[in-house]
Amino acid sequence: MADQGQLPLATSFPVCGVPHAVDDCVLLAHGEGARLTRKLIHDVLAPAFDNELLRPLADAAILPAIEGRFALTTDSYVVSPLFFPGGDIGKLAVHGTVNDLAVSGAEPLYLTLSLILEEGLPIGTLRRVVQSIRAAAEACGTPVVTGDTKVVPRGAVDGLFINTTGVGRLRKHAELGAGRVKPGDRVLVSGTLGDHGIAILAARAELAFEGELQSDTAPLHELVQSLFAANLRPRFLRDPTRGGVAAVLHELADAAGVSIVVEEQAVPVSPAVRGACELLGLDPLFVANEGKLVAVVAPEEADAALACLRRHSLGRSAEVIGAVTVDAPATVLVRGPLGHLRILDEPSGAPLPRIC
Amino acid sequence: MADQGQLPLATSFPVCGVPHAVDDCVLLAHGEGARLTRKLIHDVLAPAFDNELLRPLADAAILPAIEGRFALTTDSYVVSPLFFPGGDIGKLAVHGTVNDLAVSGAEPLYLTLSLILEEGLPIGTLRRVVQSIRAAAEACGTPVVTGDTKVVPRGAVDGLFINTTGVGRLRKHAELGAGRVKPGDRVLVSGTLGDHGIAILAARAELAFEGELQSDTAPLHELVQSLFAANLRPRFLRDPTRGGVAAVLHELADAAGVSIVVEEQAVPVSPAVRGACELLGLDPLFVANEGKLVAVVAPEEADAALACLRRHSLGRSAEVIGAVTVDAPATVLVRGPLGHLRILDEPSGAPLPRIC
Repeated sequence: MADQGQLPLATSFPVCGVPHAVDDCVLLAHGEGARLTRKLIHDVLAPAFDNELLRPLADAAILPAIEGRFALTTDSYVVSPLFFPGGDIGKLAVHGTVNDLAVSGAEPLYLTLSLILEEGLPIGTLRRVVQSIRAAAEACGTPVVTGDTKVVPRGAVDGLFINTTGVGRLRKHAELGAGRVKPGDRVLVSGTLGDHGIAILAARAELAFEGELQSDTAPLHELVQSLFAANLRPRFLRDPTRGGVAAVLHELADAAGVSIVVEEQAVPVSPAVRGACELLGLDPLFVANEGKLVAVVAPEEADAALACLRRHSLGRSAEVIGAVTVDAPATVLVRGPLGHLRILDEPSGAPLPRIC
Repeated sequence: MADQGQLPLATSFPVCGVPHAVDDCVLLAHGEGARLTRKLIHDVLAPAFDNELLRPLADAAILPAIEGRFALTTDSYVVSPLFFPGGDIGKLAVHGTVNDLAVSGAEPLYLTLSLILEEGLPIGTLRRVVQSIRAAAEACGTPVVTGDTKVVPRGAVDGLFINTTGVGRLRKHAELGAGRVKPGDRVLVSGTLGDHGIAILAARAELAFEGELQSDTAPLHELVQSLFAANLRPRFLRDPTRGGVAAVLHELADAAGVSIVVEEQAVPVSPAVRGACELLGLDPLFVANEGKLVAVVAPEEADAALACLRRHSLGRSAEVIGAVTVDAPATVLVRGPLGHLRILDEPSGAPLPRIC
């Protein structure tokens, strides 16, 4: 006789040590394109994302014409843990894709959603992530118009991975690119740096730091829109995710053949992140953000751009953190508190893997 | 002293039991958006896929306007093994996405490519997959215009997963959908069924069957184009992948509220696949294909559509395998060799997981 409270082997999955009934878990057959896949789609996915474009549930979504050029971006999300202070993998996926469109000068329009699920994943976990994707997609005005679900055997994936691809309409006045950046241009960031990376690190290591550490995951399309609406013409926009602001500035310095000088004292960092970084020996410039904007603007637009960013709730802590020069091509320099310049290394990896 | 031929621990990865130098393997840092990610992109990915639209390597590709409606489709590929007779995960990803566009009535235009790599994956394996993607994308005329690469720690993924999203221009005369299917319509398949699923099964289990088993992975856009070019107006097109033809017909019968009668003796199956299916107790109607088309056409177009498919190299073994009726709504029936009708069950899972 089976022990009390224990389900028969064939109908239970020990997920995180807790037995779940098979009906509550993702099975391999949920990914095989047949009846159980349709059931998963009809029970969990289609109701959450229901919209006119998704409703046919065909092999491809048929979308109305977009006038003019459009932007296309793709990202996979493998963050661990799936849920963290300030967000989760689903919200991150939507925001990340919306942000890639926004910094490319496009208004986000549509998302695709491809899930890779691990056999045994509790359906409840999937529902939580799906609800988070739905809420974020609704808030951004970017419906999920087509999708795909695969299931892989236990151990072949770590819970749940997401791919989101985004389509956006290119703004008429967006002329963005490293090639447009000129000596004298100013470098702005829209708020405190390092929040996402440190929140994930703390969640993963179960570290208790002073103060509250929360991911900054947020959609930047309205913040970007506000710059264009104010008749500003930023020359380069980027969301500093993996590799942080350091990676963005190195890429820009390289591509534009310029040098960039960062004023260390101007870099906004929250007290909690600063404390954690000091303890761990990390530089916030290298830590990932998921709701921050780097904007390079002409010097005569710097004040207006800063004021514009600060008027938006996501840009309240915006700062001008540096300027573009030609003193040392393809180099990023930091001016420390005593006025000395040092070279900011290019990050070769990140302080920790799987932050998005 | 280290044993002869053995690399020091810190610089080797035992991949499949064989030590590889660290330089030859994917590292976590290759996915962290910083210098090593750029190196991987510049050494392996950008040269392979180089084209004008990809070249800026920005967060999103900026693409020229598409006239009229467009199609968008996404799929993740988790096939195991990565290489199999007749193809590999890369070729499969390109063909699968191109085919989803083609059966939606769209001309494939662009692909995105998102890679999830396992730490320790030999760079040589990655290069092989990348070359295969490049060759398949070139052959289909669908450049990779944007991408993403993530690396997850060993054990968090099984070697290599791929997501491809595709964009296509909708044909003006394509009016496809279950809603257009009518009683009397004929059901055609473009060739032998079950080749892909059985080839994967044989490769995975290292089974030796009589005859040659090869995946049928192939792009169907030209085959579909040939139907429209011949002024034919198919009512429903689908590529029968996971769940095979049975899953496609069940979905259609359900969605259109019709019944479909399949003539078992008309179903084309290669001798090698038939032998393997008999041995394993599988029905080829349930086994996955990756280069076959199911087309439902008006009865008066059936002969011309069959002739048109047979003129194309991918449609030489095309057959009319059945017809749409209204005798038993939402049911798929099979007429056996003695004329008796039986119900074709809806597959609830697939005979084996991870076939695409």
